[in-house]
Amino acid sequence: MNTKHLTAGLAQAVISSVPETSAEAMTEARKGLLDFTAAAFAGRKDKGIDKLLKLIDEEGGRPISPLIGRNRKAAPSQSALINGFIAHALDFDDVHSDVRGHPSAVILPALIAAASSGRMDKSRFLGAYIAGIEVMARLGESVGSRHYEKGWHNTGTLGAIAAACAVGYAEKLNQTELEKAIGFAAAQSGGMRVQFGTEMKPLHAGLAAESGLFAARLAQTGFGGSVHALDGDKGFFGLYGDFERAEAMFLNGWGKPWRIVSPGLWFKIYPFCSAAHHAADAILKLKAQHELTADQVDRIDVVFPSAGDAALTERRPKTGDAGRFSVEYIITLALDGKDFSAENFTSKPIPEAIQSVFPRIHRRYDARIQPDENAVPKGRFTIVRVTAAGNQVYETRIDCPKGAPGNGLSEEDIQEKVRLAMPQKAEELINAVLQSDIERYLQLI
Amino acid sequence: MNTKHLTAGLAQAVISSVPETSAEAMTEARKGLLDFTAAAFAGRKDKGIDKLLKLIDEEGGRPISPLIGRNRKAAPSQSALINGFIAHALDFDDVHSDVRGHPSAVILPALIAAASSGRMDKSRFLGAYIAGIEVMARLGESVGSRHYEKGWHNTGTLGAIAAACAVGYAEKLNQTELEKAIGFAAAQSGGMRVQFGTEMKPLHAGLAAESGLFAARLAQTGFGGSVHALDGDKGFFGLYGDFERAEAMFLNGWGKPWRIVSPGLWFKIYPFCSAAHHAADAILKLKAQHELTADQVDRIDVVFPSAGDAALTERRPKTGDAGRFSVEYIITLALDGKDFSAENFTSKPIPEAIQSVFPRIHRRYDARIQPDENAVPKGRFTIVRVTAAGNQVYETRIDCPKGAPGNGLSEEDIQEKVRLAMPQKAEELINAVLQSDIERYLQLI
Repeated sequence: MNTKHLTAGLAQAVISSVPETSAEAMTEARKGLLDFTAAAFAGRKDKGIDKLLKLIDEEGGRPISPLIGRNRKAAPSQSALINGFIAHALDFDDVHSDVRGHPSAVILPALIAAASSGRMDKSRFLGAYIAGIEVMARLGESVGSRHYEKGWHNTGTLGAIAAACAVGYAEKLNQTELEKAIGFAAAQSGGMRVQFGTEMKPLHAGLAAESGLFAARLAQTGFGGSVHALDGDKGFFGLYGDFERAEAMFLNGWGKPWRIVSPGLWFKIYPFCSAAHHAADAILKLKAQHELTADQVDRIDVVFPSAGDAALTERRPKTGDAGRFSVEYIITLALDGKDFSAENFTSKPIPEAIQSVFPRIHRRYDARIQPDENAVPKGRFTIVRVTAAGNQVYETRIDCPKGAPGNGLSEEDIQEKVRLAMPQKAEELINAVLQSDIERYLQLI
Repeated sequence: MNTKHLTAGLAQAVISSVPETSAEAMTEARKGLLDFTAAAFAGRKDKGIDKLLKLIDEEGGRPISPLIGRNRKAAPSQSALINGFIAHALDFDDVHSDVRGHPSAVILPALIAAASSGRMDKSRFLGAYIAGIEVMARLGESVGSRHYEKGWHNTGTLGAIAAACAVGYAEKLNQTELEKAIGFAAAQSGGMRVQFGTEMKPLHAGLAAESGLFAARLAQTGFGGSVHALDGDKGFFGLYGDFERAEAMFLNGWGKPWRIVSPGLWFKIYPFCSAAHHAADAILKLKAQHELTADQVDRIDVVFPSAGDAALTERRPKTGDAGRFSVEYIITLALDGKDFSAENFTSKPIPEAIQSVFPRIHRRYDARIQPDENAVPKGRFTIVRVTAAGNQVYETRIDCPKGAPGNGLSEEDIQEKVRLAMPQKAEELINAVLQSDIERYLQLI
């Protein structure tokens, strides 16, 4: 692999690999597709969708691609945009620790739009998804943690290239077309973490899906573009990350194992930011063990490794959707005996009684604590220390929360998530996915 | 003006100013609209357009917004995208030295799409254009020269926010809506200089126009987003530039004078990158004075201030469109007695005889040379030194080329550019623009 030409190397890796031959990867891809569909159906009534529909109604377009859970169709690019939003609306969709973001909510909407608009061999759908995850995981690793910490939103910034490669694989782009598609996607890459806690965050997934689809399709028209968009310090990695870092690692060991298998997708059991799942498990455990209530609690310390709470941008959220990014809100909900169902994470105001607890919750960082070797994501942990009436202190530590790889959801758990989200069509949909029947899948969503 | 909140400050400045009251700014806006239209009509047969039309035909859409010079309409977002491409296809459209890019090719397509889709008071069109230029010039100044030098393409990266503000002014967004629109645009900002010399470069203008329109329209649906996208070191300036620099200058002296008046738009007389216009004037002057031909020339040195040729990415172009970014090609064309008409800048191969001259042309940089105080852009100059047979040396220096502010095209020159580009409808179009009749303008393009 010529690492001096990362663009050409990536295109070649995508084109020449055959992810379908890995039974393990295909199993994970089917789980991913089921979990994605459950997350999207759970989010199908989000109020943001109606606002987006207003815009596309003004635009018009050929209704050929499905809008998940809405019983209607839209133009392919509109379907990619809106399905990305739907899938990520509740933050209930998978994350991947290499990506530090949400790969399926970008890649699958682009593939669904492509598959439904007639140009694609649907037997390549799951392979394309595996390839897309591979690309996005490697982009994430190569831009490094600094990218996210600086303020970029990886789902948006890395998603377009990954989606372009996935559609490129599915639609059999040739080497030059795929190199150009990567460049078209790179030039449209954006997304900022300042949007966390707003409707724009999930729309970043949709915008990246739309851009990736557009990039792959544009390349097929023969449109002219750079075939070096990832190369050198003025290319994508130079602008969004660190070219030297990327050059040293980007394509090493492609598909061995596939990143969808290891470290694997993290399927969520709660509809909020994965960075708060450790604390959620911890407070539920402490509450169950000690029958804690909010009244009894004087103070709670939540201890992270440094920057371990970077995604948790909301310390004093006022609405449930902002609360998705607030460890303070999530801990208080649990203490208060509320569950983590989607109803507690809408745009409705958070009751004063809940908000009044937040000042008693303190975030701390302790660089001396050694992360567990099985921690997910790598290097992460969360300790929740509750100081209750009478100076009683209860403490627990979570390194790998329920749902994360190593403590993951079983196939049965994921099927249950599908049944809860879409009771009427669940069995049919599960069967279609288990049989890799994408044609039927597209009719059911 | 509260500089800690640049987003709120920008929205307030756009909403509360009334550019229409400046007769000077309105005159420049009418000139800008005429020149933009001439550049677009000159580019209306570019082959890239057909490729883009193929894509939008697959998508469908309500045909309500014009595609310039094509006698057909498209959905508003498609019109913004494609008109941006058409206007910038030949690199014959205006530039602005504060922007270090092409403001009109982004802002006007967004406004044309908005005006033709029925929601906008067309008497605000020219004022919105003035406001958009103001925003884009200030963004360019605030991200500083480092932004461009790093590899970003300012037309793309700064255009979406400017277009969102222009449409926001035209469609009378309120303060919160405009703050959110700025954030929606910021999160979609992209564009890389590695695309220079390809069809993707002009498409950056179209993508930014489309994103800006989308951002302004999305905000009007009540969609949720950050109202702080420009603020702090994790906001737009922190990611794409330098927040402290922006904080110190971004909104100082808004509209005093309007940036469309000073430093003003640079209307081009040649359809290639403005960074080569100095050298073009120089070689034409030397050729006229000394009757030089390529055969007689042993060597040519082209001297720039450091990084003064950053936009001229092509040293050995193989096709005319890449030659748009090659001082070597442009100098050789002139020496060879060819003119600078659009036919010499298409995707056709450059003849071997022309290419064989390139190795004799050498770029040099001299930091000791003092820039002229009237140089455009600030700090720029180009010296062309020809060494001819018998060691004869001819040299000339250009600080402010023909077309640039200070040496600019007169209204009559611009009208002539319109007449050349669209002979049949020129007089009617010129009259419509001079009367600020946007309704009629939209029917004529």
